Amino acid sequence: MKKCTVFAPATVANVGSGFDVLGFALCDVGDTVHVKKSSTPGLVIESIIGANNIPSDPVKNVCTVAAQALLDCLEEKQENGYSFIITKEVAAGSGLGSSASSSAAAVVALNELLGSPFSRHDLIPFAMKGEALASGAEHADNVAPSILGGFTLIQSYEPLRVVNLHYPEELVVTVVHPHVEVKTVDSKRILKQNISLKTAITQWANVGGLVAGLAQENFELIGHSLHDVVAEPTRSMLIPMYEQVKIISREMGGLGCSISGSGPSIFVLTDSMEKAKNIADSLESLYMNNFISCDVYLSKINKMGCQVIQ
Amino acid sequence: MKKCTVFAPATVANVGSGFDVLGFALCDVGDTVHVKKSSTPGLVIESIIGANNIPSDPVKNVCTVAAQALLDCLEEKQENGYSFIITKEVAAGSGLGSSASSSAAAVVALNELLGSPFSRHDLIPFAMKGEALASGAEHADNVAPSILGGFTLIQSYEPLRVVNLHYPEELVVTVVHPHVEVKTVDSKRILKQNISLKTAITQWANVGGLVAGLAQENFELIGHSLHDVVAEPTRSMLIPMYEQVKIISREMGGLGCSISGSGPSIFVLTDSMEKAKNIADSLESLYMNNFISCDVYLSKINKMGCQVIQ
Repeated sequence: MKKCTVFAPATVANVGSGFDVLGFALCDVGDTVHVKKSSTPGLVIESIIGANNIPSDPVKNVCTVAAQALLDCLEEKQENGYSFIITKEVAAGSGLGSSASSSAAAVVALNELLGSPFSRHDLIPFAMKGEALASGAEHADNVAPSILGGFTLIQSYEPLRVVNLHYPEELVVTVVHPHVEVKTVDSKRILKQNISLKTAITQWANVGGLVAGLAQENFELIGHSLHDVVAEPTRSMLIPMYEQVKIISREMGGLGCSISGSGPSIFVLTDSMEKAKNIADSLESLYMNNFISCDVYLSKINKMGCQVIQ
Repeated sequence: MKKCTVFAPATVANVGSGFDVLGFALCDVGDTVHVKKSSTPGLVIESIIGANNIPSDPVKNVCTVAAQALLDCLEEKQENGYSFIITKEVAAGSGLGSSASSSAAAVVALNELLGSPFSRHDLIPFAMKGEALASGAEHADNVAPSILGGFTLIQSYEPLRVVNLHYPEELVVTVVHPHVEVKTVDSKRILKQNISLKTAITQWANVGGLVAGLAQENFELIGHSLHDVVAEPTRSMLIPMYEQVKIISREMGGLGCSISGSGPSIFVLTDSMEKAKNIADSLESLYMNNFISCDVYLSKINKMGCQVIQ
């Protein structure tokens, strides 16, 4: 095998109360990375399609940084090199795990080319090196669901323990990405670094409720437990029309709604494609009527995670 | 029906990471309340067996306070009265939900006498009035598992939402109650009222892991996720030999170990009665060798909760 192409799905991290620990993968939207073996040693970005603000210097690009982390862990050093073609579909700064999709696709493709020396779980730390480059922190809440698929919980970082959660098949998500810029630095700075014990207890009661609701396929409990009392109260201020989105999604039968990652994308969970579609149409109209362009996605939870497509 | 006797099990609340939200019921150990209809209006404590520091004034006893809360919610006011005989087996201040067992038994027995106008779930808020009398806070993490049985999560207080969690049948718990006094006021004061966001995230990652581990019957995950970074670091200082108990239970195959309620009782979860028994013997020896008397309990999770025994 001399080349390999992998699609890595976009992801919703945090998932309401699951701040920094929960995430799930979307269908259809994601980044694609094509990796080719070359006789020249080293890693090269051949081209980046679909985005013009992504660095092509291999030490500054998340794909090659993640790929290098993988190569550094191989017992046998490679004499040849690898070139990358990155097709970006997940907008950077959307809150949908753009850097995670690229990092995930890169390591899964490279691993495939190498004859799969690593399991999917083993690849997560390499993709986290891409995340560290993009955001300064080796977080796994986007790369884990992008690589593994499904709904994941990062139970621990040292050692890394990723749990695949059970969830009801019927779950459908509507994602709206209003085209406004929320700087990651702002969405980080706006968070309080200390919280009251009371607030923390409310949050972990909801995390417990959300995991139980997913496991028991109890939609009402899922909806109640999405409620985020830690990040949403401040971060939502950076997202235009946030309150209206919440009201509309609740009135139209959404189970619950919160910020995807650090925003500005917002996700709504529902128990049927029909409701999700109606909510999508209403949210699109809401932003259009307020002269804010947006992308809207409708998706079930992506079970597969990264997919080798060639 | 003119009289009714109900057994309400002792409970382990907090359950490691599930501070203030998780709890489960024990088998065999608990309080028993006998309620008798009488022609004289009002509530009377006829006798208290097994404890001599429990008030028999009906406005100061958790059983009659909880029972009165139930009577106040009846549409039809009662012309007759009720007398109570309380048999206490759960020591006050043990950390095993002593007041909760008495409150739970009282409301379940009275409800039975009245022809069950309330469901088991509906009885929880009445028993919480007993808890408020005992500790100053209407908490439900002991009364819910005592009344309902099983492993419960208090997902929300307003409105009250109690979730019955799935758990593996094989789960066995060893509880050791060293006979030392830990004043509730001390174990409350010792808690920080503000915690770092980082600590809070670790805790809710563990709560999510614990609920997922129980649901998936994944004993390893249950063990890892019991870890409490909020209350245990300070509260454990009030419990003699705590570190040794942790070491022994880990070395003898315990899944994990933490403080029951606010202590001084300690619980150890295991996946077999044999391991639980060996751990029980070792912990008993540990305390005996250090001249501290203790009670030791071995139990599966009590599925039934309160039981009407007459």
